[in-house]
Amino acid sequence: MKIIVIKFGGTSVGNLNRIKKVANIIISYIKRKYKVIVISSAMSGVTNELLLKIEKIAKEFPDAEKDVILSTGEQVASALIAGKLNELGYISRSWLSWQIPILTEGKYNSSRITNIYKNKILSYLKKGGTPIIAGFQGVNSDNRLTTLERGGSDASAIMCAKFFKAKECIIYTDVEGVFTTDPRLIKSAKKIKKISYEEMLEMASLGSKVMQPASIQDARLNRIDVKVKSSFKKKSGTLITKKKKIFNNNVIRGISFTKNDAKFTLVGIKDRPGVAAAIFKPLYENSVNVDMVVQNISGIGRETDLTFTIKIDDLYKTEKLVKKNKSIKFKKLIIDKNVSKVSIIGVGMITTPGVTYKMFQALAQKKINIEVISTSEIKISVLVNKKNLKKSVETLHKEFKLDSL
Amino acid sequence: MKIIVIKFGGTSVGNLNRIKKVANIIISYIKRKYKVIVISSAMSGVTNELLLKIEKIAKEFPDAEKDVILSTGEQVASALIAGKLNELGYISRSWLSWQIPILTEGKYNSSRITNIYKNKILSYLKKGGTPIIAGFQGVNSDNRLTTLERGGSDASAIMCAKFFKAKECIIYTDVEGVFTTDPRLIKSAKKIKKISYEEMLEMASLGSKVMQPASIQDARLNRIDVKVKSSFKKKSGTLITKKKKIFNNNVIRGISFTKNDAKFTLVGIKDRPGVAAAIFKPLYENSVNVDMVVQNISGIGRETDLTFTIKIDDLYKTEKLVKKNKSIKFKKLIIDKNVSKVSIIGVGMITTPGVTYKMFQALAQKKINIEVISTSEIKISVLVNKKNLKKSVETLHKEFKLDSL
Repeated sequence: MKIIVIKFGGTSVGNLNRIKKVANIIISYIKRKYKVIVISSAMSGVTNELLLKIEKIAKEFPDAEKDVILSTGEQVASALIAGKLNELGYISRSWLSWQIPILTEGKYNSSRITNIYKNKILSYLKKGGTPIIAGFQGVNSDNRLTTLERGGSDASAIMCAKFFKAKECIIYTDVEGVFTTDPRLIKSAKKIKKISYEEMLEMASLGSKVMQPASIQDARLNRIDVKVKSSFKKKSGTLITKKKKIFNNNVIRGISFTKNDAKFTLVGIKDRPGVAAAIFKPLYENSVNVDMVVQNISGIGRETDLTFTIKIDDLYKTEKLVKKNKSIKFKKLIIDKNVSKVSIIGVGMITTPGVTYKMFQALAQKKINIEVISTSEIKISVLVNKKNLKKSVETLHKEFKLDSL
Repeated sequence: MKIIVIKFGGTSVGNLNRIKKVANIIISYIKRKYKVIVISSAMSGVTNELLLKIEKIAKEFPDAEKDVILSTGEQVASALIAGKLNELGYISRSWLSWQIPILTEGKYNSSRITNIYKNKILSYLKKGGTPIIAGFQGVNSDNRLTTLERGGSDASAIMCAKFFKAKECIIYTDVEGVFTTDPRLIKSAKKIKKISYEEMLEMASLGSKVMQPASIQDARLNRIDVKVKSSFKKKSGTLITKKKKIFNNNVIRGISFTKNDAKFTLVGIKDRPGVAAAIFKPLYENSVNVDMVVQNISGIGRETDLTFTIKIDDLYKTEKLVKKNKSIKFKKLIIDKNVSKVSIIGVGMITTPGVTYKMFQALAQKKINIEVISTSEIKISVLVNKKNLKKSVETLHKEFKLDSL
């Protein structure tokens, strides 16, 4: 069987007309003799509506019940797509995670798919049916509904591609593919034809919302080629694949940035072993993701300053946790809500000297102050004041010749 | 275990504030040492919103997928209630039909519950948990979601009361109980404290929307006492129970009426055996519910007139079916859309002579013309012109002393 997995994002099924278009895309693959497994997201806006209800009901809402609620979005969308295909004369039905089943492990709200039972879906495909699987969810060993991380329909698609040994995995979304940077901010941003998992991973985790980071990682681990395409425009998208398949002279492949970070600086903490752990332990336990971390020696005896960044959504929670943490003492807490992280990404960076220097030099020439620096093998990130965000990205996009791709 | 089943209707969980009230009602029973099983409807309006989506997607939408979509309404509401109870410090979780499981038989969109597995819920109750079961749904032998008839959360409640041998089953709704007639039409309508299943069944099927007829029948067959109460006002409701438990001097317990009937008269049909069957067969096959039927001898040789009533929703379908029915011949088809059915109901009627006479006499005195009559052991129904509806109900309400209860 020539199995293909197609996933449709929230905006692709954003309204009823679009669901009709989605049905036509699916049919185009059926006509080309593919056995199509479809993964559906919730209609855009639906998940947020549901989240709003949850927030209004209770401040401390149990995660397990949240998943019961959120999973309905994909359940509805998958049945609507199946219904439309039926009307158009195709055999199709919705498949819910507990019917297949799709097994997950981990915490509610952020589970991971560990197994997908193939028998029922395979025999349905053999009978000529097109299964529409509700994405973003599974069942755990307690037989309860779980959802994957936000945007987790991507993970559903990748894992389906893996377990069903699909020839291809196509992510239909509202963008044409992966760009050198966000085209909404920088007009000269260019579409990337092929990108490695590693680069895509950095692009994604740094804010390019094309695909969910965890699912890119899954694709990488399972060596699944993923195509990102627009469900609105008939254009070639971006292929996310192995490094080896990519030939490109540019060291830097893309520039990523975030808008919703906050910076915490704890001034005058005791510089003793275990102090960082004491600060980050309650944050970890309360699911606050700490991103950049810098420790400066303040010079005054055995005191130091510690700076870290978090998502602005976690601001209130983090502030509370830091303030009530009795195992650490500090003189002052400075919170800066006006920071943005800008990152340059490229697998070629490892073997090319001078990238760091070029980056800092280019920003310095534009009088952009760098507040925090963090580096990995294939990316360099700097924290800048939010007012300098656009200028920073523009400068680096030009500096690394992405304008002229 | 002192088990009680409580069901909340759509308006009771109609908005987020009301869900908070619902949580408090549940807690009041927990505090009185009840083991509470809660059945939740969808938040009012949600089911209609989902139906609207379905209609817009496809004219011929598959029933199985419809159920996948509609069942999400109760799924969300049950999790919201469970979440609120958790916040208030009570152990609670949502239970979906496939998790229990609740088994159903029959067609999609109108299935019936055949079995409820008790083990999981019982052990959850023993641990001190309060299960919130999503009403209106189950799973069939294909392991697919099914929904019960519209308003079918009542059936979920009755069947839970049956299988879990509950001490009581309470239906929380937006009305205070069952009234002698619709208080919106007749100001002097009185709340009935106790009513028999049989009377309630007639009241319900004749238009009192307090409970779904099929579930009253289930309650009767399983001898489950059902209390109908308002979730908004702290007032005693109506108890639906066995005849024997009721002591009341009034022969007539209530007056029910419909507003949405249509009357078909086939003038000059051949009066031969099987003609009525020939007329009603295609109606039955197309799910048209025929209500009252009268056949008059027209006097002219071997010809007769046949009159029947249907719900106005089926008007167009019925007209088409009658006109294209080649196995019957008639001279004229008269359709009257302005008819209403008024019924007096009471189990005492069987043993009390003269009820019929009193009814007809009272209407005649007010110059109200009776178009069709139909009787059962505990009710007499008459068809009147819609303009006489209010006057008819008022007259009978007074005649049978329901004003002075």
